[in-house]
Amino acid sequence: MLEALKKEVYEANMLLPKYNLVTFTWGNVSAIDRQSGLFVIKPSGVEYESLTPDDMVVMDLNGNRVEGSLNPSSDTPTHLELYKAFTDIGAIVHTHSSYATSWAQSGRGIPCYGTTHADYIYGEVPCVRCLTKAEIDENYEKNTGILIASEFKRLKKDPVATPAVLCKNHGPFAWGKTAKKAVECAAVLEEIAKMAYRTELINKDICCAPQELQDKHYLRKHGKNAYYGQR
Amino acid sequence: MLEALKKEVYEANMLLPKYNLVTFTWGNVSAIDRQSGLFVIKPSGVEYESLTPDDMVVMDLNGNRVEGSLNPSSDTPTHLELYKAFTDIGAIVHTHSSYATSWAQSGRGIPCYGTTHADYIYGEVPCVRCLTKAEIDENYEKNTGILIASEFKRLKKDPVATPAVLCKNHGPFAWGKTAKKAVECAAVLEEIAKMAYRTELINKDICCAPQELQDKHYLRKHGKNAYYGQR
Amino acid sequence: MLEALKKEVYEANMLLPKYNLVTFTWGNVSAIDRQSGLFVIKPSGVEYESLTPDDMVVMDLNGNRVEGSLNPSSDTPTHLELYKAFTDIGAIVHTHSSYATSWAQSGRGIPCYGTTHADYIYGEVPCVRCLTKAEIDENYEKNTGILIASEFKRLKKDPVATPAVLCKNHGPFAWGKTAKKAVECAAVLEEIAKMAYRTELINKDICCAPQELQDKHYLRKHGKNAYYGQR
Amino acid sequence: MLEALKKEVYEANMLLPKYNLVTFTWGNVSAIDRQSGLFVIKPSGVEYESLTPDDMVVMDLNGNRVEGSLNPSSDTPTHLELYKAFTDIGAIVHTHSSYATSWAQSGRGIPCYGTTHADYIYGEVPCVRCLTKAEIDENYEKNTGILIASEFKRLKKDPVATPAVLCKNHGPFAWGKTAKKAVECAAVLEEIAKMAYRTELINKDICCAPQELQDKHYLRKHGKNAYYGQR
Repeated sequence: MLEALKKEVYEANMLLPKYNLVTFTWGNVSAIDRQSGLFVIKPSGVEYESLTPDDMVVMDLNGNRVEGSLNPSSDTPTHLELYKAFTDIGAIVHTHSSYATSWAQSGRGIPCYGTTHADYIYGEVPCVRCLTKAEIDENYEKNTGILIASEFKRLKKDPVATPAVLCKNHGPFAWGKTAKKAVECAAVLEEIAKMAYRTELINKDICCAPQELQDKHYLRKHGKNAYYGQR
Repeated sequence: MLEALKKEVYEANMLLPKYNLVTFTWGNVSAIDRQSGLFVIKPSGVEYESLTPDDMVVMDLNGNRVEGSLNPSSDTPTHLELYKAFTDIGAIVHTHSSYATSWAQSGRGIPCYGTTHADYIYGEVPCVRCLTKAEIDENYEKNTGILIASEFKRLKKDPVATPAVLCKNHGPFAWGKTAKKAVECAAVLEEIAKMAYRTELINKDICCAPQELQDKHYLRKHGKNAYYGQR
Repeated sequence: MLEALKKEVYEANMLLPKYNLVTFTWGNVSAIDRQSGLFVIKPSGVEYESLTPDDMVVMDLNGNRVEGSLNPSSDTPTHLELYKAFTDIGAIVHTHSSYATSWAQSGRGIPCYGTTHADYIYGEVPCVRCLTKAEIDENYEKNTGILIASEFKRLKKDPVATPAVLCKNHGPFAWGKTAKKAVECAAVLEEIAKMAYRTELINKDICCAPQELQDKHYLRKHGKNAYYGQR
Repeated sequence: MLEALKKEVYEANMLLPKYNLVTFTWGNVSAIDRQSGLFVIKPSGVEYESLTPDDMVVMDLNGNRVEGSLNPSSDTPTHLELYKAFTDIGAIVHTHSSYATSWAQSGRGIPCYGTTHADYIYGEVPCVRCLTKAEIDENYEKNTGILIASEFKRLKKDPVATPAVLCKNHGPFAWGKTAKKAVECAAVLEEIAKMAYRTELINKDICCAPQELQDKHYLRKHGKNAYYGQR
């Protein structure tokens, strides 16, 4: 069942240690087959070096395990809510990557300080608030997904143009069309989190990049007149 | 004698360079066999690349060398006092890992700024004071262990829930059920020390993660209703 | 056509990941054959691991593709303007290397704090302003090159003695006699950007290195009485 | 001539890239044979990957090249002055290692913040002033050595107990009994420079480690009653 997608999700999970985005088992990638409404996700707490494509767990959007003998990632309900709310995305990544998590712990979104950021992510990467005690006590992981979705709506952020978020006191989620693209976005997020941190230490009075420069770089790669790469 | 434990301690010591927790010989791991009351520890000042399982030294809780031709780690009396005071732990690690040691040098405990910390360590990692001149002059290493134990008692910290400490102007100790778990804790400590450092530089007014979030993440992995991983 | 130069440019591009100067495809190297007025440049958005010497694109100084089936780097018009303005240089590198880009994002030039800097780059590495909206909207990449050249003229900087620049909110360009020398300069730039960042955090009141020390080190390696290395 | 020493100096030079203490050719190691008064040093500007033991240059203490076809390191006169002034040392290392150089650029000595420092280096690592214009113009490298020696004398520092120094706006020198020990000291210096930098950012009001703790750790490893390691 969904063998190609399971392989894709497995390979994307294996990119996390390759790109230095995880310590131990602190990360997970999933991807959805929009036709069947099923998604494939990493099992919970399994070490990367012993992971195989067959360990991947298949879930439906009601939260039922459809295939697989292992427990799915404990963050599965968050992925599920994001797939329901963001209908144009195909894959999701969660990590505790070091710089992005430091921003999340500081409770601040990552301002767009330059073209490295603007090339991939449109505008600030938002940082959503901590859950309340009630939200934590009941369905913590599900409420994390609901909060991210509602904050994107409130902030009028397009999740395709801004494919990443920070959860206060927790860490980042990133997403994309495919599992590989989502992991690439998580790697970009870590790199821009690192640069933004240093940028502020070099010049504490720095402002965001001008809007026209942000637009130029985002559209150079993503707009309908995009001319970056081989098209 | 205790061949399996010697192998386990040897392998855990070899994880220290693998996880980038030591420079040269600056670290040591021990583990105790609670039935016999004997513990196994790395010899003093031997380079990791020439270490073998047979080099491990067997000690009793009176500080006598029971087996082994090499001198045990100079920190042996600290390990011994911790085994006597913290009767539920099975292994201890000391390193000079870079970020954790920087916090120890700064004389500050590491606040719990997020779920990466809460997943493994309950509450702040305390930093105990420097020893007095008298404590240093007589039985320095033994007094280090006594101080850690008495500070945990004074602070009402459970050493199983908070398996790490910083010694001011010196460096970290971490512990766990097994030698491998103790080294894993030392690696987590280094990672959260790194993130906490950056968190404060990104937002100097940041506070700890809310208590309910700390509880949720710690209990998700460690409580009796834990649901993380494959159980 | 220009087979030797294509190989040289290919090999210099492959040094970028080796020296940790690029993430994904975020960098490009070109080199010019001054006799024919043709330059060779990396194709746009091609991953380093699948790059071959034959993928290199040959351009003339009017911006026409003379050979190659792939699109040239989107930064090609910047390289072209720099070759026209700086007639003594033979190769150009653009990266988003982490520390140099952080300085660019902060909008500050890199002061000469020591001999590591002075050995390779004479005086401050300037940071040129952001382009205006008009400059961005029409010929963004070409205007980037024109701005760098005009700023060097205004600041009376010799591009041979100061072979690097930062573009505000964007990143660094570096250059040299050959493609290999230009990449070496980009690596030096990253290293001095890292050291200058830390230097200011260690001592916020620090000033530049004395002019006579800067002169001594630059001339020890580059002046007509240079005595560094094997001559 | 001095084949064993040439091999030792060659191998110690090759440790510099292994320990990440150099970029390109920015470092050199020498060692002296006190009986003959000859010392062996790395040639100037030769890349580490093409270096061989036979490339090492033999010098006498009058600055004459006694053997070898290559030019000796441009820092040779500094090494020479240190060998003349510090008669108990057997080897010298100069690097531009990243953190130690950042401290040198900031013009500050490295305070002893903990036992990692005290285990190897007694007290603060001093930072000597920049040379004057006159000192730079005439015999720059020789005057660097003379300044270091005279500063150690003025500060009443024992070069055996404090085997490292920073030169303002330049970088570190370290030394030891043997070439290998000197490189080990350079690696320790880099590590304590890194930790001291972070220590101050975590707690800007931090003071040095208490003198009795510094004494204890230094003497535990180096005094006549030393008990660290296998003796």
